[in-house]
Amino acid sequence: MTKVLILGAGGMVGQKLAHHLLANGLNGDTDLEISGVDIGFPPNGAAIHTHHTGNLTDPALIAKVATARPDVIFHLAAIVSGESETNFDKGWATNMSSMWSLLEALRAEHLATNGQYVPRFVFTSSIAVFGAPFQEKISDTFLSAPQTSYGAQKAIDELMVSDFSRKGFIDGISIRLPTICVRPGKANLAASSFFSGIIREPLNGLEGILPVSDTTRHWHASPRSAVGFLCHSAALDTARLEGRRALNLPGVSCTVAEQIEALRSLAGEKVVALIKPKPDEAVMKIVAGWPRDFDPQRAISLGYKAESNFQEIIQVYMDDDLGRS
Amino acid sequence: MTKVLILGAGGMVGQKLAHHLLANGLNGDTDLEISGVDIGFPPNGAAIHTHHTGNLTDPALIAKVATARPDVIFHLAAIVSGESETNFDKGWATNMSSMWSLLEALRAEHLATNGQYVPRFVFTSSIAVFGAPFQEKISDTFLSAPQTSYGAQKAIDELMVSDFSRKGFIDGISIRLPTICVRPGKANLAASSFFSGIIREPLNGLEGILPVSDTTRHWHASPRSAVGFLCHSAALDTARLEGRRALNLPGVSCTVAEQIEALRSLAGEKVVALIKPKPDEAVMKIVAGWPRDFDPQRAISLGYKAESNFQEIIQVYMDDDLGRS
Repeated sequence: MTKVLILGAGGMVGQKLAHHLLANGLNGDTDLEISGVDIGFPPNGAAIHTHHTGNLTDPALIAKVATARPDVIFHLAAIVSGESETNFDKGWATNMSSMWSLLEALRAEHLATNGQYVPRFVFTSSIAVFGAPFQEKISDTFLSAPQTSYGAQKAIDELMVSDFSRKGFIDGISIRLPTICVRPGKANLAASSFFSGIIREPLNGLEGILPVSDTTRHWHASPRSAVGFLCHSAALDTARLEGRRALNLPGVSCTVAEQIEALRSLAGEKVVALIKPKPDEAVMKIVAGWPRDFDPQRAISLGYKAESNFQEIIQVYMDDDLGRS
Repeated sequence: MTKVLILGAGGMVGQKLAHHLLANGLNGDTDLEISGVDIGFPPNGAAIHTHHTGNLTDPALIAKVATARPDVIFHLAAIVSGESETNFDKGWATNMSSMWSLLEALRAEHLATNGQYVPRFVFTSSIAVFGAPFQEKISDTFLSAPQTSYGAQKAIDELMVSDFSRKGFIDGISIRLPTICVRPGKANLAASSFFSGIIREPLNGLEGILPVSDTTRHWHASPRSAVGFLCHSAALDTARLEGRRALNLPGVSCTVAEQIEALRSLAGEKVVALIKPKPDEAVMKIVAGWPRDFDPQRAISLGYKAESNFQEIIQVYMDDDLGRS
């Protein structure tokens, strides 16, 4: 039996991952015991085996999940970008200090088993580790110079995961997710929310507000791809990473105009007409500091796959989520 | 009066900095009150105003130095590379956790003064933040992918210094020092020690052991340049860093053969004959993972200066240190 732990199991990607594991197993392994940690879980969520409701800043919770010695840990939990920027203490405590505590707790299990226990540790980092000015296509050797506290915390976590892995205490990998799009459900307060909103709301017959110019270019992958990245990371031969355990992942680079064209081709003019431009200087300023395009050669050669155009990304939403929320 | 704090004031570079400040002031400012922190100080060392003997992992010591509200902080203190690798807990506690505690203590002073207190914070990082494989000349946008715990800790510190600075709590800069050469005094246990030893020992009539091939290329600057980098960083208009507060510094890239040629030209054949090749596989392996050359355009455009060849580096040792230890 494989013990799987999902940190942040109550969130959108965490729930999709849990549903996937329950339905399909993990890379063919269906003998799973799945535990999840989050500050809350959705009603009627994925029927995983154990729910731990609590905060990763709680040492007792860290101790509980580490002493259970999960074989595979998916770490999706974080204070999001916007809140980390407005609540400095909370962001650093959750996104940095609790990562340190968790890694130390796992190392203690490693040492207690004379080195037998070495969990696979899949950490969801973010393209927020990058800060402007950018290369036209960000290469696999481009520096992390984040311009947000969230990005700094994720970059620090990557360095910790790498060093604990180099020492053999865990077997970790950090994957820098593209912006996940189209997010199902309600809009959230993230500045990136509109990238999903301008597709999701019109497909549901609602107005979708567009706060930026349609020339804005960004980097996307679907929730289904995110689940694929996570499962692929759980099985990857990490020796192939040659010590560089943080990866830029594949995705789709497109402008908002290209997003809208893709929506038009799939859903028609009436749906597109529900997109309402409403320029917002604050959002435009934030988005101007975000990466636009990548050249993720390493991840592609390691077998990671995403959609190849934005039409496919919308199709995933229509197949997996439309009409279900 | 300008209050200057030197963390790691008892070390070789810390002492040279202190002597420089006492003799010349800080960029023309001679009205200085200089405090130093270290686990120990040399007998007959620089006559700074206050010596704090203690460890930065001690919260009481952190509180003491922060509440004094120094205007300029030079942070040179660290557990060195070799010891951080063999003593995992000690390296992370001193090089990472105490940095966090110090920054938090300085932020508390910032908040207590309603934002009036914003110290200049000059952090000595290291080219150990880089890990192989390298570019032929490491550019200013090359990733930090350290292959030692020391390098990971320094890279994390840089990210903390940058984010605390971006938020306006401190005004920080991280300078990635080249290997400092020629170090005066006795050989130490660092794997890089021989780069100094093969010059220093023969100039003092002693055998200098060369554990690597003479084709080994590395990146050097003199102790005098290190002091110059630190003082220049204290005065720099940090707005010019445009949010990227970690800098690769200028230095001299040369092979061991070129080092030896430089020694020959300054000191003659008899001195060079004291260099004894004694290949050491362990040292060779470590050194193979180190950077060889840089293209530090940003630092040069910001006015940082180092020697332009290895002969100058040896001359600095002969002028400043030979016959004095």
